Amino acid sequence: MTWNTFGRVFRFTTWGESHGPAIGCVVDGCPPGIALSEADIQPWLDRRRPGQSRFTTQRREPDQVRILSGVFEGRTTGTPVSMLIENTDQRSRDYSEVAAAYRPGHADYAYDAKYGHRDYRGGGRSSARETACRVAAGAVARLVVPQVRVRAWVESVGGDAIDAAVFDDPDAAWAEVDRNPFFCPDPAAAARWEELIDAARKSGSSLGAVVACEAAGVPAGWGAPLYAKLDAELASAVMGINAVKGVEIGDGFAAASLRGEDNADPMRPGAAGEGPAFLANHAGGIAGGISTGQPVRVRAAFKPTASILTPVPSVTRAGEATEVRTRGRHDPCVGIRGVPVVEAMVALVLADQALLHRAQCGAG
Amino acid sequence: MTWNTFGRVFRFTTWGESHGPAIGCVVDGCPPGIALSEADIQPWLDRRRPGQSRFTTQRREPDQVRILSGVFEGRTTGTPVSMLIENTDQRSRDYSEVAAAYRPGHADYAYDAKYGHRDYRGGGRSSARETACRVAAGAVARLVVPQVRVRAWVESVGGDAIDAAVFDDPDAAWAEVDRNPFFCPDPAAAARWEELIDAARKSGSSLGAVVACEAAGVPAGWGAPLYAKLDAELASAVMGINAVKGVEIGDGFAAASLRGEDNADPMRPGAAGEGPAFLANHAGGIAGGISTGQPVRVRAAFKPTASILTPVPSVTRAGEATEVRTRGRHDPCVGIRGVPVVEAMVALVLADQALLHRAQCGAG
Amino acid sequence: MTWNTFGRVFRFTTWGESHGPAIGCVVDGCPPGIALSEADIQPWLDRRRPGQSRFTTQRREPDQVRILSGVFEGRTTGTPVSMLIENTDQRSRDYSEVAAAYRPGHADYAYDAKYGHRDYRGGGRSSARETACRVAAGAVARLVVPQVRVRAWVESVGGDAIDAAVFDDPDAAWAEVDRNPFFCPDPAAAARWEELIDAARKSGSSLGAVVACEAAGVPAGWGAPLYAKLDAELASAVMGINAVKGVEIGDGFAAASLRGEDNADPMRPGAAGEGPAFLANHAGGIAGGISTGQPVRVRAAFKPTASILTPVPSVTRAGEATEVRTRGRHDPCVGIRGVPVVEAMVALVLADQALLHRAQCGAG
Amino acid sequence: MTWNTFGRVFRFTTWGESHGPAIGCVVDGCPPGIALSEADIQPWLDRRRPGQSRFTTQRREPDQVRILSGVFEGRTTGTPVSMLIENTDQRSRDYSEVAAAYRPGHADYAYDAKYGHRDYRGGGRSSARETACRVAAGAVARLVVPQVRVRAWVESVGGDAIDAAVFDDPDAAWAEVDRNPFFCPDPAAAARWEELIDAARKSGSSLGAVVACEAAGVPAGWGAPLYAKLDAELASAVMGINAVKGVEIGDGFAAASLRGEDNADPMRPGAAGEGPAFLANHAGGIAGGISTGQPVRVRAAFKPTASILTPVPSVTRAGEATEVRTRGRHDPCVGIRGVPVVEAMVALVLADQALLHRAQCGAG
Repeated sequence: MTWNTFGRVFRFTTWGESHGPAIGCVVDGCPPGIALSEADIQPWLDRRRPGQSRFTTQRREPDQVRILSGVFEGRTTGTPVSMLIENTDQRSRDYSEVAAAYRPGHADYAYDAKYGHRDYRGGGRSSARETACRVAAGAVARLVVPQVRVRAWVESVGGDAIDAAVFDDPDAAWAEVDRNPFFCPDPAAAARWEELIDAARKSGSSLGAVVACEAAGVPAGWGAPLYAKLDAELASAVMGINAVKGVEIGDGFAAASLRGEDNADPMRPGAAGEGPAFLANHAGGIAGGISTGQPVRVRAAFKPTASILTPVPSVTRAGEATEVRTRGRHDPCVGIRGVPVVEAMVALVLADQALLHRAQCGAG
Repeated sequence: MTWNTFGRVFRFTTWGESHGPAIGCVVDGCPPGIALSEADIQPWLDRRRPGQSRFTTQRREPDQVRILSGVFEGRTTGTPVSMLIENTDQRSRDYSEVAAAYRPGHADYAYDAKYGHRDYRGGGRSSARETACRVAAGAVARLVVPQVRVRAWVESVGGDAIDAAVFDDPDAAWAEVDRNPFFCPDPAAAARWEELIDAARKSGSSLGAVVACEAAGVPAGWGAPLYAKLDAELASAVMGINAVKGVEIGDGFAAASLRGEDNADPMRPGAAGEGPAFLANHAGGIAGGISTGQPVRVRAAFKPTASILTPVPSVTRAGEATEVRTRGRHDPCVGIRGVPVVEAMVALVLADQALLHRAQCGAG
Repeated sequence: MTWNTFGRVFRFTTWGESHGPAIGCVVDGCPPGIALSEADIQPWLDRRRPGQSRFTTQRREPDQVRILSGVFEGRTTGTPVSMLIENTDQRSRDYSEVAAAYRPGHADYAYDAKYGHRDYRGGGRSSARETACRVAAGAVARLVVPQVRVRAWVESVGGDAIDAAVFDDPDAAWAEVDRNPFFCPDPAAAARWEELIDAARKSGSSLGAVVACEAAGVPAGWGAPLYAKLDAELASAVMGINAVKGVEIGDGFAAASLRGEDNADPMRPGAAGEGPAFLANHAGGIAGGISTGQPVRVRAAFKPTASILTPVPSVTRAGEATEVRTRGRHDPCVGIRGVPVVEAMVALVLADQALLHRAQCGAG
Repeated sequence: MTWNTFGRVFRFTTWGESHGPAIGCVVDGCPPGIALSEADIQPWLDRRRPGQSRFTTQRREPDQVRILSGVFEGRTTGTPVSMLIENTDQRSRDYSEVAAAYRPGHADYAYDAKYGHRDYRGGGRSSARETACRVAAGAVARLVVPQVRVRAWVESVGGDAIDAAVFDDPDAAWAEVDRNPFFCPDPAAAARWEELIDAARKSGSSLGAVVACEAAGVPAGWGAPLYAKLDAELASAVMGINAVKGVEIGDGFAAASLRGEDNADPMRPGAAGEGPAFLANHAGGIAGGISTGQPVRVRAAFKPTASILTPVPSVTRAGEATEVRTRGRHDPCVGIRGVPVVEAMVALVLADQALLHRAQCGAG
């Protein structure tokens, strides 16, 4: 069943296809009185926008967002915030080939199996273009939890990882993230990735990536037992992003190889008036589904872009053997543009949890 | 906010603490007319039951389930199925130490930060004992989707992995899973783990584990864009299990290191009247959030049990420095007993998605 | 908390204010493969459209609906159907008076108390203009349950009721409903209402009305115990329409004066292959929250339009005494245009329940 | 689809049948730190308990509630509160007659049409016995909104109404409600009802009733546009009570006969630091779906008990004509015991809305 709404009390609903007239979202449950205009949203969309370097798809969309409701005299009214982004660069082309055969690694066959037909233009609803709406909604979410700072970066491309030590100088690392087209905190890695991705693109291939995200400033106490655990909500939010195949909180899979005493996050007394000071953060800022006050850490594995020029055996809708090469404009490494989307989804979960915590416990 | 209900149309709600009089769950939305009695549920609970070997906690609970509603003349009526499991082995002891100090790696501090107080007896609501309710609900879910077979196993303990080649003879591998106390398909690994876990237990330590799960028989078409994607639902379900810190679908994080052509799941024409035959299953049976008809594959990383005898620095509720050693009866590797819980959560998601698919698309 | 989504699996979300650039809705969960275009929706909007007679507000909105997503090659894809209606006749005027004082009978003070500020232009989100979105969504719902025919009419205006006997000739009664501007099945009453409403309008007053609705063709078995009872869902749907203050199912309040034997709906054997034939329908087609196969009957009480020229004592935002006369363009009897809205809400509930029934019971 | 959970953030789930071993409910989302024990709940159950006078069913249930979870050291922990009530007086009898024929006015046929079979013992899930769980959950809800006082009474029985003037002396009226077995504020009416109900019972008939409810102390600002309007939530909550066929807010259906100036609730400046003072309360304390600070007023129409000794034509499950007389122990006027149930549902809605308001707006 389609379920295009995410969230429990701070909710957003997205709609639209890659090649329809527009895409959009409706943000519901936003607190009133928050200063909000298009200028608060556009910069986040610009970070995700395609066509900005040769390392992303060459589709050129201005992705100009319009707010259609829920804001009056520059502030949210508490009623739904409807946002709309027009599709302008739907290049006219012949889709008969895509319509006839299932692209391997894409949702083509699964959609057809479910719905009995599908919108085959540019992937229809399964297009990553929908993630622009998440970024727009995420920009509103950030304003709901201004005490939280959500930042993501690319940790590895095609298995080539950054040097984790770059975060020993966090300011330099964050500055570097904004400086290269890969959201890479490590200039040496960024240089290597340029070659790696160029080579993949030229050979008609594509690469996967790992994106890491940190939310600083989350107070202890957000989230909940049992089926709205903060980590479970984050897992759902991030695994639901196109091309994501794995999610980790804190040490994630590495924790499965640790011994209890190495995985423990020891505590010592914190500063006056504050909670305990933690001596490690293997848990990624979440214990028992509830935030601990440490930075919340999430990691997402993006598979390589499924659209590649290399031919892959497939079948036609009629059930006959064929080969598919996906022409068109595609990201050689879709994980890169996943960075602002991961950030947005994390911000959306945190805004929802902040309001839920306030509902039950009255704090905040 | 607590949210002790999971699912969209096939839903279950759990309640109860480790040291209260009982725990239980209410399964709502179950189709009518399904043959159901305690005998359908008890075997799954028995698989999870503690105290069956020296490799699990020595708490001895019979975990006898009683069905209190929703079944009449041996069949579900379509109304809520309430199930209750009494707590019988709440060993009388002194909890003043646990009440006073926060156990590192546990939810103690986070609960206190959220709620202002907590039930400190055996972890209260955050106890893994709650997972018995998931297993009971999962047993009902299996009956809702009898065409699906959900089976999990332990893939590694403390970083020591099975030989994946054991699944070349799947019947032997599955038989072995039922034969040893580790749900291990590889007898050689099982022998090593025996030593490994014994050593950890004796040294007052604990080990993490990776659990893998496969759901065979899922037809193409379950799941949905966008915020009820089958993989997102599974991620939420599995990440919400106590001690899980990572979730993968299909190749998971390994996909991030692959090239597009290596990650593609090529298709060729299937048998008459069937969908395409896939030549690989990197995707883990899910594309675009919808099942492809291949086996659905999920993997979960369990952190090492937080309760260890090795002392770890911590703070008291009053904010003073202390050290915590967790005495009591604990699983040295909590991931092992996670196997039936992972299976249950996967079954619960699939039952829900099966009904949702039928709601929207009318199929079977 | 705002919650601008209605429905459980067939859901719609509305957004927009009376005086913003547009209003709209997103219909989610619609089954795939349904033929749908603007031409299926526009006629229902035209029935509700203002400015068609002197008995409704003189605001003139073309209410042209555009479908922005979810339809491909003339059929629903199973993904969200986004619909947008531009606001074109937002007459430029001075709202300072409305902004300063609370209009009695309106939501002005309540909104301000809740949100700390409000969009005072034409009522903002509380404007009945939002109901156009319900009508658009309802038009889609009708296509989901084509076996059901939902029709409403005005039963009384200002306490002046139709002659119930007009339904002895149902074809004539239904034809009459479409013939006069009051959705009145009784020509004699329609003539009286014309005078009544004219007189109210001229004297700066307004009138209440009762709207009745019948859904024929609902099979036995829709709805459910306990908290998604068909009657409870209808009550929520209809009470949520602007200006509605009462809802009845079947005999409603009259049933409270009946004796058991008079209120019973006796049954006798039905036609071969069918359920029982009922000899009465006091229950309004619903028993125990589940449809019985008889026509579903709902009645709604609309209060008189709150916007009147007669001055009413009120207070300013600053807390000072004042008097308010509501100028502007208003329906002298808002219940009349409630007819298509009641129909839409009933259709939306039934579509949702049809899919829910199919989810659990597999039928339909 | 069954949906045995009510509420959005403060939620309860009920389970159980009239003739199973027990009934119960799970209250989720309750704020932590609230003093709670069985002693806070039992008095409300006792008010609803059957067998206390000859005017209610002679089934004798002690209705002793047990709290099984969610409370520690006398206070709510913020985790689910599970409550259980054993069924003790399931009189052994022969149900073959009930199983074979559909009782008119009951849910028998509708359940069978939906589920294909049903629990015919005492109505199964459709028994009014379930309402004990609502009363228990409602007792918890009252503690969540201690500033609110929810009180209901019977306004008419079989069409014989109280003298509304008794509320001119509200203390006397409320005292009287607690003094007679009819929750009747008017001693003269109570005397008449005694005869009326005795006569109905002796003649094998039954009577309907109207129950009125007032929630005092609700601050302005609870509720919300659009699909969680306070009045829509109340309508859903109250219409979902067994035997209710109509719901009114404020003047309800009477408002449909009023003119705008008579229905307006004029305001004048309130006391210092307070909102406006209203000069009338036609609106029943709700405008635009949001509370105004006036008492919230709801009215419910209960149909006459369907179980009567007077024979009514019906059909057997096999489709043959028969007559049904319902023997057994029944309330001659089920609306009377509806009083504590209406109160409970209103309290449950208000607790939920209080938390939702705090979530979005931070107040309270």
